[in-house]
Amino acid sequence: MHVTIEQAEKAIAAARQKALALGTQMCIAVVDSGGVLKAFHRMDDAWVGSVDISIKKAKTAVFFGMPTGQIGKLSQPGGPLYGIEHSNDGLVTFPGGLPIVDKDGVMIGAVGVSGSSVENDHAVASAGVATLGVAELPEHPWRT
Amino acid sequence: MHVTIEQAEKAIAAARQKALALGTQMCIAVVDSGGVLKAFHRMDDAWVGSVDISIKKAKTAVFFGMPTGQIGKLSQPGGPLYGIEHSNDGLVTFPGGLPIVDKDGVMIGAVGVSGSSVENDHAVASAGVATLGVAELPEHPWRT
Amino acid sequence: MHVTIEQAEKAIAAARQKALALGTQMCIAVVDSGGVLKAFHRMDDAWVGSVDISIKKAKTAVFFGMPTGQIGKLSQPGGPLYGIEHSNDGLVTFPGGLPIVDKDGVMIGAVGVSGSSVENDHAVASAGVATLGVAELPEHPWRT
Amino acid sequence: MHVTIEQAEKAIAAARQKALALGTQMCIAVVDSGGVLKAFHRMDDAWVGSVDISIKKAKTAVFFGMPTGQIGKLSQPGGPLYGIEHSNDGLVTFPGGLPIVDKDGVMIGAVGVSGSSVENDHAVASAGVATLGVAELPEHPWRT
Repeated sequence: MHVTIEQAEKAIAAARQKALALGTQMCIAVVDSGGVLKAFHRMDDAWVGSVDISIKKAKTAVFFGMPTGQIGKLSQPGGPLYGIEHSNDGLVTFPGGLPIVDKDGVMIGAVGVSGSSVENDHAVASAGVATLGVAELPEHPWRT
Repeated sequence: MHVTIEQAEKAIAAARQKALALGTQMCIAVVDSGGVLKAFHRMDDAWVGSVDISIKKAKTAVFFGMPTGQIGKLSQPGGPLYGIEHSNDGLVTFPGGLPIVDKDGVMIGAVGVSGSSVENDHAVASAGVATLGVAELPEHPWRT
Repeated sequence: MHVTIEQAEKAIAAARQKALALGTQMCIAVVDSGGVLKAFHRMDDAWVGSVDISIKKAKTAVFFGMPTGQIGKLSQPGGPLYGIEHSNDGLVTFPGGLPIVDKDGVMIGAVGVSGSSVENDHAVASAGVATLGVAELPEHPWRT
Repeated sequence: MHVTIEQAEKAIAAARQKALALGTQMCIAVVDSGGVLKAFHRMDDAWVGSVDISIKKAKTAVFFGMPTGQIGKLSQPGGPLYGIEHSNDGLVTFPGGLPIVDKDGVMIGAVGVSGSSVENDHAVASAGVATLGVAELPEHPWRT
């Protein structure tokens, strides 16, 4: 199952609302369960460099079915996934990318956010995901 | 001057409306006057391959300040710009990308559309541009 | 607002002057506020590898509105932005890239320098920026 | 032998002069005899898409030691070099790129120009080359 455009826009609206509440300017990307861009929103005055980062965060979250920050813990020097960022035309593995898992435990896509501290990026992505489901996948396989 | 996110969303809404009226499923991209992605919308069931094409059409229109189809007439075999598509990490030079020129004659960005025939793509992009201005640049320079 | 070519050449002339005073051979790049190359100067005998680094430093500084070295402090192993260099077709996050902020607090572009120690690179970039404004952005948004 | 920065700036100044005389806004690139960027100049209001094209034209001219337009005649459908634009991370094979050959018949670099019609691009590149030598290579090998 893929996130619909209606769902993607709902997630972006909620994320944007959170970004405004935090006084930040964010890039917000939504990808489907195959990692393909579904919707994108760059707030006025957001960093130009955040366009690519937000999209890569969303893709990274879908590619491995987990929050980007979780992958980043494994990709540190000496860690089991050291250097994974070199794959897939570039991953971003710090917080701000979250899978969207619907009520049936199916991953339907992901939200990626960039434009402020990683804590704010994560909070804004969470607000987007919360409108559609949760960010945690159940143990069993999930792909549609 | 760059297109604002409010303007970009207005253009996408109008383009989407036109796409629905034509019974098509489109990818619609808006870039700013530097060619950087501002907003993106993929209708449900749109071709996956149209994501990149719509974004490249919007970029191509801004890169040269003219409709993509106009460049495509010059880039045919034997034409003066044959092969220009190999520049700038890939251009798309058939119809569906249009500059957005405001009432002061300033190019503020571009709309790129992909997902159906080039006639339909062009019509949908035109509907997006029409909400914000025109697609023709005056003779004098435009960049901010 | 974008840096003009006259401003870009003024910055390059001052940076070159500083490079000569330090007895170094530098690549000096200036990009506009969208990260697009405006002017470039490779001194005789400068490292060939510095061409790309100087341009990427200038882009990185504009992409996030801060000195490249500041990003590098955050992108170390264990840091919040670890691996950010994999985004945007490659960032350079050690010193030598500086935003150009004009007297109105608007970021009009950036200077990127490569060819010697990072201390020298930074000093040469600073000399370029100083002819046009400062390298620090005010809190409020800056994009035109 | 490589073009010096002094020579590169002389070529750019002459090319710019010609561009102004033609009432055009050009990107002007100079590369050395290895195809590495030496100097670059983007006139105000030049097309953003011309940055990459001017650099690729200069590289293409050096890569094969001939004017870009000459290669374009061979790369047409059915021609002996059909599709050569796919090599070297993208070539540009229409007019506007010219080798710089010094008085000893040695190719020291190339000039690439983009921003107007190919006739104007070629005229501006020619003005740049004329300050340093000619655009035609003698029969014998040339590389230093």
